[in-house]
Amino acid sequence: MFPPSKTPLKDRLKAWFAPKGKLRPFRLLRQDISNIRKRYLSDWATFNQLVFASAVYVFFTNILPGITFASDLYVLTGMTWGAIEVVFSTGLCGLIFSLFATQPLTILGVTGPFSVLAENIYSLCINSFHVDFLSVMAWSLIHAGWMHYLLAIFNAHDWTMQYVTTFSGDIFSLLNSVIYFHKAVQELQRTHDAVSLASFLYSVIGAIGTFAVAVFLSTANSWAPLFHRYIRMGLTEYAAAISIILFIGVPHIGELATLDKQTLAVQTSFRPSSPDRTVFFVRFWELPIAWIFISIIPGAIITILFYFDHEISSIICTLDRYGTKKPGGFAWDIVLLGTTTAICGILGIPPSNGLLPQAPLHSESLLHSVKVDITTTDEDTGERKIQFVEKQEVYEQRWSPFLQSAGILLFLSPPFQHVLGLTPTSVLAGLFMFMGEQSLAVNPVLYRFFYLLTPPSELPSLPTGVNTYWGIHAYTTLQIIMTGIIFYVTLTVAAPAFPVIIIALVPVRLLVMNKLWGRETLRFVDAWACKEGIPEDDEDRRNGSISTREVERKEAIEDNQSRAKREV
Amino acid sequence: MFPPSKTPLKDRLKAWFAPKGKLRPFRLLRQDISNIRKRYLSDWATFNQLVFASAVYVFFTNILPGITFASDLYVLTGMTWGAIEVVFSTGLCGLIFSLFATQPLTILGVTGPFSVLAENIYSLCINSFHVDFLSVMAWSLIHAGWMHYLLAIFNAHDWTMQYVTTFSGDIFSLLNSVIYFHKAVQELQRTHDAVSLASFLYSVIGAIGTFAVAVFLSTANSWAPLFHRYIRMGLTEYAAAISIILFIGVPHIGELATLDKQTLAVQTSFRPSSPDRTVFFVRFWELPIAWIFISIIPGAIITILFYFDHEISSIICTLDRYGTKKPGGFAWDIVLLGTTTAICGILGIPPSNGLLPQAPLHSESLLHSVKVDITTTDEDTGERKIQFVEKQEVYEQRWSPFLQSAGILLFLSPPFQHVLGLTPTSVLAGLFMFMGEQSLAVNPVLYRFFYLLTPPSELPSLPTGVNTYWGIHAYTTLQIIMTGIIFYVTLTVAAPAFPVIIIALVPVRLLVMNKLWGRETLRFVDAWACKEGIPEDDEDRRNGSISTREVERKEAIEDNQSRAKREV
Repeated sequence: MFPPSKTPLKDRLKAWFAPKGKLRPFRLLRQDISNIRKRYLSDWATFNQLVFASAVYVFFTNILPGITFASDLYVLTGMTWGAIEVVFSTGLCGLIFSLFATQPLTILGVTGPFSVLAENIYSLCINSFHVDFLSVMAWSLIHAGWMHYLLAIFNAHDWTMQYVTTFSGDIFSLLNSVIYFHKAVQELQRTHDAVSLASFLYSVIGAIGTFAVAVFLSTANSWAPLFHRYIRMGLTEYAAAISIILFIGVPHIGELATLDKQTLAVQTSFRPSSPDRTVFFVRFWELPIAWIFISIIPGAIITILFYFDHEISSIICTLDRYGTKKPGGFAWDIVLLGTTTAICGILGIPPSNGLLPQAPLHSESLLHSVKVDITTTDEDTGERKIQFVEKQEVYEQRWSPFLQSAGILLFLSPPFQHVLGLTPTSVLAGLFMFMGEQSLAVNPVLYRFFYLLTPPSELPSLPTGVNTYWGIHAYTTLQIIMTGIIFYVTLTVAAPAFPVIIIALVPVRLLVMNKLWGRETLRFVDAWACKEGIPEDDEDRRNGSISTREVERKEAIEDNQSRAKREV
Repeated sequence: MFPPSKTPLKDRLKAWFAPKGKLRPFRLLRQDISNIRKRYLSDWATFNQLVFASAVYVFFTNILPGITFASDLYVLTGMTWGAIEVVFSTGLCGLIFSLFATQPLTILGVTGPFSVLAENIYSLCINSFHVDFLSVMAWSLIHAGWMHYLLAIFNAHDWTMQYVTTFSGDIFSLLNSVIYFHKAVQELQRTHDAVSLASFLYSVIGAIGTFAVAVFLSTANSWAPLFHRYIRMGLTEYAAAISIILFIGVPHIGELATLDKQTLAVQTSFRPSSPDRTVFFVRFWELPIAWIFISIIPGAIITILFYFDHEISSIICTLDRYGTKKPGGFAWDIVLLGTTTAICGILGIPPSNGLLPQAPLHSESLLHSVKVDITTTDEDTGERKIQFVEKQEVYEQRWSPFLQSAGILLFLSPPFQHVLGLTPTSVLAGLFMFMGEQSLAVNPVLYRFFYLLTPPSELPSLPTGVNTYWGIHAYTTLQIIMTGIIFYVTLTVAAPAFPVIIIALVPVRLLVMNKLWGRETLRFVDAWACKEGIPEDDEDRRNGSISTREVERKEAIEDNQSRAKREV
């Protein structure tokens, strides 16, 4: 990423460390701290019904999948980490980020890739080296902590992530949809292996029912004229929550109550999963000194994983289409991430980081229409025109991340855990499908995939400079193939490496693809507004069309009036 | 319906029998025969892909429910009438009507009300009077035949059915939706009682799956840009057929194949259901003479039922919204109905008549957009404006009714019957739901019911003369209550009387309701175009809006040009 140069290394180093240089320590951090001060108070000033609904939605889409991941983790870490550790980490880290992060839209949780990594480390500790897993992990996370600090201090964001393009963003989104659909199928398969055929068939009904009801309710906003506008809004905003609660109830009706059930595995007390532990604290200083140093290796791997994963989550949840305006702060958030990671290590719980697709789903759920005035002045006549354009924007505030993480912490208490334990795994499979669908429905790759299946004669006309659809089709196909490859990787032991592959796509897009695709074609696919798959220009025009016409009509009236005056 | 009058009976009779009088024999029939000659050749001249798709759709929606009704009939007529008799009658009467009826859009089949009547007659013959059921039925149907002729000759249509209003039409449509949803539930209940819980749970999946896939595919036309236009059209047109075939296959996959199944009960040879009969012929002359005369009573009841049922079917499948233009012929079709009824009697099979909701679904499936030019002349300037308005029209032809009934006759042959026998009852339940939904989706009562649930402030503004929504709400509520009452009647032994209740609504609407509701309110609800629940005026305006604007734009340009000339 550094510009190739023929100047001697010493001069280059000097330039890099100069006040505006790439590696100038604390350059980004200073900026971020100023940003956070600018936005902090206004972040708490916005609170409304949509924000609350968003908190409820994110709560469910965060805690339920978290608990499911936990059941795998529980088995593969020899009962060291279970649901309680995952929920604790998600709630604690989420709360810290909602209070102190620059970008509060990013949702945190224990991620799949980290689980895979942790399982591998566990296996090495126990089977190969016979050393205490929790102490090694604590040190790994402490090491990861200071490594995060270094990345932030030396402005890592500037020389890595700022090049993340729409190309890789689309792929990452699609990957998440695929992963969630796959998880839904896996969840049902697991149910199939555990229960009777009748019970499994009900699970299929429960899963598809949860999914279908949620999707159906999420369209309520367009049901007019049916119900009061606020009722429609409520149904749309709480679609997933209503559907989940409904299908938690259904299996208790009539004959279904007699079926054997698979529900979420929860605990009923607030103490570590492992029977060997009594408190959430690791006596990490008791680890042999050699192992403290060896822990630098897993610490570095975790750092790479967390850094990329968290930054990508933050980037994807603040894409152009969400209309975010407040400044973010990648460096400061990485400092915070290093801190929470080290804390989790000492508490002996898995660390949380930026979570996909929950982070962009959070932004999605905060979207609302805003009317924007655009004043243009006619160059010839000097006349001013005012156009009202409807834009989509998210509420940028801290209440929804704060409430959802506070809610998750609340569910650590035994009575609430009991309630969670009522959730059938089929509801979870349905929720996974819904999350996959919600994420897929706004992915431009989907709409460009539809284009692939349609003869060019039936497609909308292209902007000037783009002659055929073949370039666009090739771009789409490449994205789908890349998604397939990365998905395959996530199924192998190399899974934790997958963010690195996505990062590797950045230079591919910037250096190689620029040579293979026409500039106009790339501009066209990059500018594609994700919502409903309409290129951005078109959508703006459509959204603004009524208001524009309104303005024209007024002008026509004024024109007539002035003519009438002349005639008098 | 006869106008109250103080002139002596003799003069009144004279007036009724005068050349244009209400009871003038053959008045309507003569007109109908001229109508059928006008349209006959052009009816065979239209054949295209949509017509074929319509035939396939009607085939499935006719034969599958027919076979289901048959299984009830089979039990309740002591094995006299089963699937084979119902299919035979449906195919034969359908074929005769497609060839000789004036209005070929009306679809025929063995109806529920007739089945209830036949079951009652069977029970009386066997249990009370110990007389041969098939001979009594044959004579009843022969009597019904000449009674039909009398109704046609004395122009019954003119003094009964021409007053059938939107009010009763809406109710009848809604009733059909309710009946079909109820049948779907009944079908699943029956499956529930017959099979294991696992098998029942699969049936729920199969039923909802058939329904959901059919509904989803039926929207394919709006998927642009996805697939070639023709593929989308094909998916929409064959939505039900594709879904049915898919879900006939599903139960044979994997573990589902091990489940106990409920499929349609069919025969595998072409011979009467009853083991006592060998041919489709009744030696009706062997019935004691007293019983021949007694059969006049059931004959009269069947006549009333058939007359009203068939006419309502014909009226509903040629409503304004289908844009039918060719002349129908109610009197001639009643003559034909009398003939087929008598033939069925002699063959010893149940007679068919106009079938709901298949008849309007047939019209629905033949709908296509037509561009209509409307030329208006400005009274002041003498300028002519041409507007292009898109209208929905049905293909009025004989191919779709001919092909569907020929197909049904084909399925009398043993190998095809075997194929039919593979259909699970769950698919049928799904088809019932789909038929109910398709019929409900175009019913204005549904949209006015939505209005009931919406505060008036959120509803579209009303036309002048209608001040509040309360009148409209009361009208809607009355329709829903009436539907509820009639539905309740169909569940009792009085079921065959239900068309009479609907007819009784005619004077209620024309005489009583005119006094309770404002004229403008009634006009508003009567003019409501059913498609998408938009009052017809609005829809026309909307369909024409782009073209109208186009014309206005052109005029504006011309206006500018003429002004420019003046300035020169």
